[in-house]
Amino acid sequence: MAQQNSGKISKFEVHDVRFPTNVTGDGTDAMNKECDYSSAMVVFETDTGLKGYGMTFTIGRGNDIVCYAIKEVANRIVGMDAEEIFADMGKFFDFLVADPQHRWLGPEKGVIHLATAAVSNALWDMYAKARGKPLWKLIVDFTPEEFVKSTCFRYITDAITKDEALALLKKQEAGKAAREKEVIERGYPAYTTSVGWLGYDDAKVERLTKEALAQGFNHFKLKVGADVEDDLRRAKLIRSIIDNPANMPAGRTVDPKTIEGKNAGPTGCVLMVDANQVWDVPQAIEYMKQLEPIKPWFIEEPTAPDDAVGHAAIRKALKPYGIGVATGEHAHNRMTFKQLLQLDAIDVCQIDSCRVGGVQEILAILLMSAKFGVPVCPHAGGVGLCEYVIHLSLIDYICVSGTMDRNVLEFVDHLHEHFLFPVSINKDGRYNVPLDPKTGYSIEMFDQSMMDYAFPEGAYWVAAAKGEPFAGAPQAH
Amino acid sequence: MAQQNSGKISKFEVHDVRFPTNVTGDGTDAMNKECDYSSAMVVFETDTGLKGYGMTFTIGRGNDIVCYAIKEVANRIVGMDAEEIFADMGKFFDFLVADPQHRWLGPEKGVIHLATAAVSNALWDMYAKARGKPLWKLIVDFTPEEFVKSTCFRYITDAITKDEALALLKKQEAGKAAREKEVIERGYPAYTTSVGWLGYDDAKVERLTKEALAQGFNHFKLKVGADVEDDLRRAKLIRSIIDNPANMPAGRTVDPKTIEGKNAGPTGCVLMVDANQVWDVPQAIEYMKQLEPIKPWFIEEPTAPDDAVGHAAIRKALKPYGIGVATGEHAHNRMTFKQLLQLDAIDVCQIDSCRVGGVQEILAILLMSAKFGVPVCPHAGGVGLCEYVIHLSLIDYICVSGTMDRNVLEFVDHLHEHFLFPVSINKDGRYNVPLDPKTGYSIEMFDQSMMDYAFPEGAYWVAAAKGEPFAGAPQAH
Repeated sequence: MAQQNSGKISKFEVHDVRFPTNVTGDGTDAMNKECDYSSAMVVFETDTGLKGYGMTFTIGRGNDIVCYAIKEVANRIVGMDAEEIFADMGKFFDFLVADPQHRWLGPEKGVIHLATAAVSNALWDMYAKARGKPLWKLIVDFTPEEFVKSTCFRYITDAITKDEALALLKKQEAGKAAREKEVIERGYPAYTTSVGWLGYDDAKVERLTKEALAQGFNHFKLKVGADVEDDLRRAKLIRSIIDNPANMPAGRTVDPKTIEGKNAGPTGCVLMVDANQVWDVPQAIEYMKQLEPIKPWFIEEPTAPDDAVGHAAIRKALKPYGIGVATGEHAHNRMTFKQLLQLDAIDVCQIDSCRVGGVQEILAILLMSAKFGVPVCPHAGGVGLCEYVIHLSLIDYICVSGTMDRNVLEFVDHLHEHFLFPVSINKDGRYNVPLDPKTGYSIEMFDQSMMDYAFPEGAYWVAAAKGEPFAGAPQAH
Repeated sequence: MAQQNSGKISKFEVHDVRFPTNVTGDGTDAMNKECDYSSAMVVFETDTGLKGYGMTFTIGRGNDIVCYAIKEVANRIVGMDAEEIFADMGKFFDFLVADPQHRWLGPEKGVIHLATAAVSNALWDMYAKARGKPLWKLIVDFTPEEFVKSTCFRYITDAITKDEALALLKKQEAGKAAREKEVIERGYPAYTTSVGWLGYDDAKVERLTKEALAQGFNHFKLKVGADVEDDLRRAKLIRSIIDNPANMPAGRTVDPKTIEGKNAGPTGCVLMVDANQVWDVPQAIEYMKQLEPIKPWFIEEPTAPDDAVGHAAIRKALKPYGIGVATGEHAHNRMTFKQLLQLDAIDVCQIDSCRVGGVQEILAILLMSAKFGVPVCPHAGGVGLCEYVIHLSLIDYICVSGTMDRNVLEFVDHLHEHFLFPVSINKDGRYNVPLDPKTGYSIEMFDQSMMDYAFPEGAYWVAAAKGEPFAGAPQAH
């Protein structure tokens, strides 16, 4: 491809966008009892008019702290040449995290790293748009050498070296085209978390579970951890629906490979449970033993997300009960994932697209997970996360792990209407593959949405402060 | 003690205070090549006029991000009753870190946790002042039950339970009074980092090393990691001075217990080296093997501070070379320390007073370190850190570990003149014990200093922006 003139990064805007999810009970779990799904969005523009969107996700209060930090990180790249950035995204990541004074605030964790993620991802969005490809396709078309060059290896070479990564990627080259074709046709496997938030009553759980079955899903996730009896009742309710052949949609088939080792019921449905970090290690073990009767595939986030040693102890203790361990949505950088993998602490690796510092760090985690043989099932939901992660799972399938048999990508049907290139699910309950050449990283939000839900000055929040209804239709542009 | 009326928290101020250390080469190491030592300071006041000061430390740019976050955390406690907070500091810590929306920005790490530290420490300062005791004395006078109640145990009960902590503290009760008396008389052991910043030339290193010897120090730390040959030359220069009996001050004695297992030279002097996270795990091992000839006690921060597994591997590999491993100044919470201890990854535990979330979390780390038999040698230097950590080491000695034989507390002779109760070193190179009943947590800064060095509007920075000299004398109040 001929070198383009994408121009110099001439300006950026940061938007504190908050959606009022607190009123519906969406997104409630044992740790997060109130939340307004929020986006700390940065939009870069070059002097030739090219734009790149990037965001990180928070659950409300504090989104402004992240926006404030994004401004400081973004300031560092104003004036840089976009093509020079695109030419070495690995080097760009190093630049972003190497500022010694900002580094002190992490390093590579918390607010400063969330800000790094938004900025890094915005440049990936811009890069993909400059090449007229969706982000996943941009990276899938990289040579193994280009892929490695775009990956951050600092601090993880005791787990995987550049040479090992290169060998792994080269081995997958042969099947890339076939896998790309297949996943475009079939879609990428998904599961739904929409059925079991703690804020929902049993009737709503029942209705949503039936709807999800009808949509083609066969993996279901339930939030647990507030009360054992309550959890058992809710889980048995879901099991009674998903294990009943009478509730299966017509013509449904389940590939046995996709449910192997997942405690699937008689209809091939899988149940997962998620505690959102409420327990200490011994508590997690004792509590989960009591949930054995509902046969979950895994317990997600049983304890503090930093605690690889703790997760390893939990996994070992629950193995005799047939219950696996998953974590990652709050694992803050590649060093945390490295340890989770080195200590055999997880059955499933749940990367978040914007808690770690952007695509460069994600690629490192995909490579390590493939080497350690742990399937990657990214965290999604919130706002914008589904839009991001379909790209990551496609990269994982087509050029890194080479398999999507055991993978499932989280899907939550919230707030997609605010994005120009929203994700969608096909009739088999699988993610459709984004194909529009203008897609970028799928994270471009409608201007109207960013205006209406700007906090605190947007029309929605002004109306809410007065106790008035908000009449705006975010889809109407 | 009769219940006091300390009033309600009625207001707070946040100060972004930055000192221009960048111009002198102070504080430079292989990772941090430029830094202006900065304090994100919060001052709470109750409606009865009681004040509490708390700060966290950064190295310049980004101090404003922390100040911004402090405001949001501090807002949550305005209106609370001070005595109700003091009555259960453990519960207060839980309150600070339990806000689900702020939690999302960490959890318990990075900017939001630095802000938590400043706020928590300010309330400890206020509590100690309300009782007319220095902070260390306030806590040393706690019963074991009160101590445990003030400690955060969440997520660490797989390493230490409340009952184990209680047993440990009760065992130390008997010797408390004697240890308090002894340390007040003798001071607490210290080491100096002032001699070996990377930004200093050899002549300055030589002069400072001789000065430090004359002050009574016998532990010396050198920054390494930029270049092996350079490190060897500088280390040999220091060794040639500190190993030469002719350079020892008159009447000097060294207790053999204090240098046991530390690779001390013929005069009983100990050398430590600090890489400030520049290496990957295999690099750290290879590089440090080359520094074997200079016989350091330990390598500090050889790799990413989150990487307990990596530190364990480095420690194991360097054991045959007689080199230990130390880390902790960037370890972001008690879960990180828990893993470092569980994996036998460190010889020395270097807590930072305001990177973890305040005294409640420090107490947890002191207890775990004592249980695992690892000496605590807190990180200090910067601005305000020495003022904080003497309190922590006194608590460790008097009521937790019961020993100061192998401990040394970092001392850097910078910026103490800005504090009302500055630390000082006695003739034997040991920290004096703060005894003034108004001391609190020693972190109260002069109003004039906070004004002059306020960024960017303070007199110093206004003058600097114009290229003019600053005539202010921070000591003049």
